[in-house]
Amino acid sequence: MGSIILVTGGARSGKSAIAESRTLVFGSPAVYVATAQALDAEMAQRIAVHRARRGAQWRTHAEPLDLCGALALTDGAPRLVDCLTLWLTNLILAERDWQAEAARLARTLAAQAAPVVLVTNEVGAGIVPENRLARVFRDAAGSLNQQVAQVADEVILAVCGLPVKVK
Amino acid sequence: MGSIILVTGGARSGKSAIAESRTLVFGSPAVYVATAQALDAEMAQRIAVHRARRGAQWRTHAEPLDLCGALALTDGAPRLVDCLTLWLTNLILAERDWQAEAARLARTLAAQAAPVVLVTNEVGAGIVPENRLARVFRDAAGSLNQQVAQVADEVILAVCGLPVKVK
Amino acid sequence: MGSIILVTGGARSGKSAIAESRTLVFGSPAVYVATAQALDAEMAQRIAVHRARRGAQWRTHAEPLDLCGALALTDGAPRLVDCLTLWLTNLILAERDWQAEAARLARTLAAQAAPVVLVTNEVGAGIVPENRLARVFRDAAGSLNQQVAQVADEVILAVCGLPVKVK
Repeated sequence: MGSIILVTGGARSGKSAIAESRTLVFGSPAVYVATAQALDAEMAQRIAVHRARRGAQWRTHAEPLDLCGALALTDGAPRLVDCLTLWLTNLILAERDWQAEAARLARTLAAQAAPVVLVTNEVGAGIVPENRLARVFRDAAGSLNQQVAQVADEVILAVCGLPVKVK
Repeated sequence: MGSIILVTGGARSGKSAIAESRTLVFGSPAVYVATAQALDAEMAQRIAVHRARRGAQWRTHAEPLDLCGALALTDGAPRLVDCLTLWLTNLILAERDWQAEAARLARTLAAQAAPVVLVTNEVGAGIVPENRLARVFRDAAGSLNQQVAQVADEVILAVCGLPVKVK
Repeated sequence: MGSIILVTGGARSGKSAIAESRTLVFGSPAVYVATAQALDAEMAQRIAVHRARRGAQWRTHAEPLDLCGALALTDGAPRLVDCLTLWLTNLILAERDWQAEAARLARTLAAQAAPVVLVTNEVGAGIVPENRLARVFRDAAGSLNQQVAQVADEVILAVCGLPVKVK
């Protein structure tokens, strides 16, 4: 079992639950690095549902942008990053250089001593979006996923709540 | 080989053909539980194409809403439910409590004596839909898929007409 | 290892890179059969990025429509067709009979002496598109993928840049 694990899948495919249980295998309390921002009621609702499922085995660290900084603050506890797609969205909305940040994340992950489990999304298996920004976003998400998968020890695809081993 | 089998996949990924052949392994005539409603010409056309591929080995039982009731009417013949995503659509359009129905279906499946093969769809691997109802639907579909997969003995992902074993 | 290989996956899932390395296993120089047409700046940009990644080991043959004709012009070198989804788009825009062309491609592939690797796209795992033409297209793409997968010796699903064996 490796120490960098990427869990990908479509919406509501059970990615987060799989990632949480894989993180706790490394020990607890674990650190939940939340990239979500409650910008509207729907997001606040999703965040509340996820938080309610996690129990006392978790400490939450909210960090929408500086993911590498959050990964530096470690005391050896396993970390779960949920999720990379929202982090990418935050970077793009804040007009940061997401390509530089993606490359920096890959380097940071390769240098970690304590385990990191990361959740991401499959967003490219539908019809080509008519919206240009959506096309740019799915290209960026696919590129980020590939870079993280390359340095990961394990990659898991969630299908109907079940893990499919990819790497 | 288990007796509850879930076959999932994208549009035109060969789900129905895989599910049909898996059902007939259990014996024939088998019962085709059709959840589709021919509400427009396009749906009627899709239903006709599917029906034409099935032969004399099938008896058709159309049931848009009361899936658990349809599964109770058994003489021991294998059943194929095609498909869960349309059933969910029908429940939502009829303003039924789909969450209660999904939980009831999972309990009903766990108690079946005769085999049941179910077809569902992967709808969450594209870009986040701009339409709020579409987002609610893909969350509901993902949740239903996870509940059925949990009680299933086998889960198969259809890719380009080929089965990939998930469980 | 078979001589007809289909590589499928979502947008930016690493399909082309996997297909290129699989093609070069058969020897080089290899022939890159490009179905893309630079109809706008965005497409021209994508073509340029792909071409830049390929090196001197490739000869490029551009063919938007007559794919079977391009596969007939062989000197025994391995061929990479990138990609089937754009070819299908070109056929539909040119008002060709895509169903006849898909069947002809499957027959042509089955008769090849030299290796052919083909790239295609998963386009059916999102929400049902509201646009009718998009629904027709994803059905056509799924049907084409199934026909090619049936005659292929190997089928690979690309996930986060990694190959998952399907056949």
